[in-house]
Amino acid sequence: MRNEQIYEGKAKKLLLTDDKNVLLQRFKDSATAFNGVKKAEFAGKGETNNAISTFCFQKLEAAGVPTHFIERVNDRDMLIKRLDMIPLEIVVRNIVAGSLAKRTGLDEGTVVKEPIVETYLKRDDLNDPHLADVHVFMLDILRPDQLERLKQLALKVNATLDPIFERAGMKLVDFKLEFGLDADGQVVLGDEFSPDTSRLWDLETRRKLDKDVFRADLGDLMEVYHEVAARLGVLPQT
Amino acid sequence: MRNEQIYEGKAKKLLLTDDKNVLLQRFKDSATAFNGVKKAEFAGKGETNNAISTFCFQKLEAAGVPTHFIERVNDRDMLIKRLDMIPLEIVVRNIVAGSLAKRTGLDEGTVVKEPIVETYLKRDDLNDPHLADVHVFMLDILRPDQLERLKQLALKVNATLDPIFERAGMKLVDFKLEFGLDADGQVVLGDEFSPDTSRLWDLETRRKLDKDVFRADLGDLMEVYHEVAARLGVLPQT
Repeated sequence: MRNEQIYEGKAKKLLLTDDKNVLLQRFKDSATAFNGVKKAEFAGKGETNNAISTFCFQKLEAAGVPTHFIERVNDRDMLIKRLDMIPLEIVVRNIVAGSLAKRTGLDEGTVVKEPIVETYLKRDDLNDPHLADVHVFMLDILRPDQLERLKQLALKVNATLDPIFERAGMKLVDFKLEFGLDADGQVVLGDEFSPDTSRLWDLETRRKLDKDVFRADLGDLMEVYHEVAARLGVLPQT
Repeated sequence: MRNEQIYEGKAKKLLLTDDKNVLLQRFKDSATAFNGVKKAEFAGKGETNNAISTFCFQKLEAAGVPTHFIERVNDRDMLIKRLDMIPLEIVVRNIVAGSLAKRTGLDEGTVVKEPIVETYLKRDDLNDPHLADVHVFMLDILRPDQLERLKQLALKVNATLDPIFERAGMKLVDFKLEFGLDADGQVVLGDEFSPDTSRLWDLETRRKLDKDVFRADLGDLMEVYHEVAARLGVLPQT
């Protein structure tokens, strides 16, 4: 298997394989926040997020959501289908937190009546600005039917995973997704699903079980990530 | 006529009249920018904006856009229908400028293929955040049919005024509107239409003929506002 790296992001690397349609997605131990301003390493994070993402992608595939996931091949790597990534960050929200509190003036913790899907432009140099649909179209990022499909899939991800997290004692407050287009122009879920890219609160105590622990220095990040993995029944072998 | 003031904004006051369904809208000489951080007085601005707004509202009414305008009663006052104001700032854009350049990374001056309508929450304390439709609904500001009607009216304002400004040698780059609901729950255009609330560029030279002259200290604001009024043929009597 070739190992040429074609992309390195803040939390993952992508490497070529012998199959041009397949990539190796490697989860790093790095954590970043505030558009990369805050940064640290956490031994075991890559392994944990690979395990949690594998679990979530398998649940989503079983529910009929097309994902790039092929298989987990070792502690920190999964094989994925190569996609033409859409330069959007898609955020689904069940509870007001983070930027939605600032945008609306609603208190953190307010329940959103109907889950909402938000769209941000993936541009670090612009600080990932919030977009309305009109901006997605004027930037020629997606056609209306593709954006509609993407939103439907984002809501289906929520409808699939929210009850699974709830049964594991966690509220899925919000999460970020990234999608790509496959060779047929179909919208497919890419990237990852982990406590790096979601807000998870303990169902009873509302204790934060996600990257906000790092953002706000609330405790031991890996202790929390291991707890999420354990609750989901996917704690990596140690 | 009673004169009790019921509202004072950055550029206008609203006063009661003997008719509870009618208000007096008084244009002030104040100019503010950057959410009130920059502020100055310009003798004659109220009078000029009253004249330009009167002209625009008359053109819009003639084109079938319902507005709150009743009549201009003196230099700085117009009578308006009392509306239940919708707490949104609606921005229509024909050319990339201001926050749209920051949001998209497109250069100022880029022509927008189809005019777009943007929505901002009118909340000074939150810095008037950008909203997508989902936020308008989750905040219970408007029903979907009302928002759709509001956007149609905003585009009709653009389709009506853009050629009028063009014939007067100006490009209508973008503008901000505020709407209200009348007693029947119908969406009606309120507020004002002036160089305070629009970007106007000279058609040939692209010289700025609007409040950006104040924002960026580009010259004599009243000279520019008088020029806009003169080009439209509504220069107030002096």
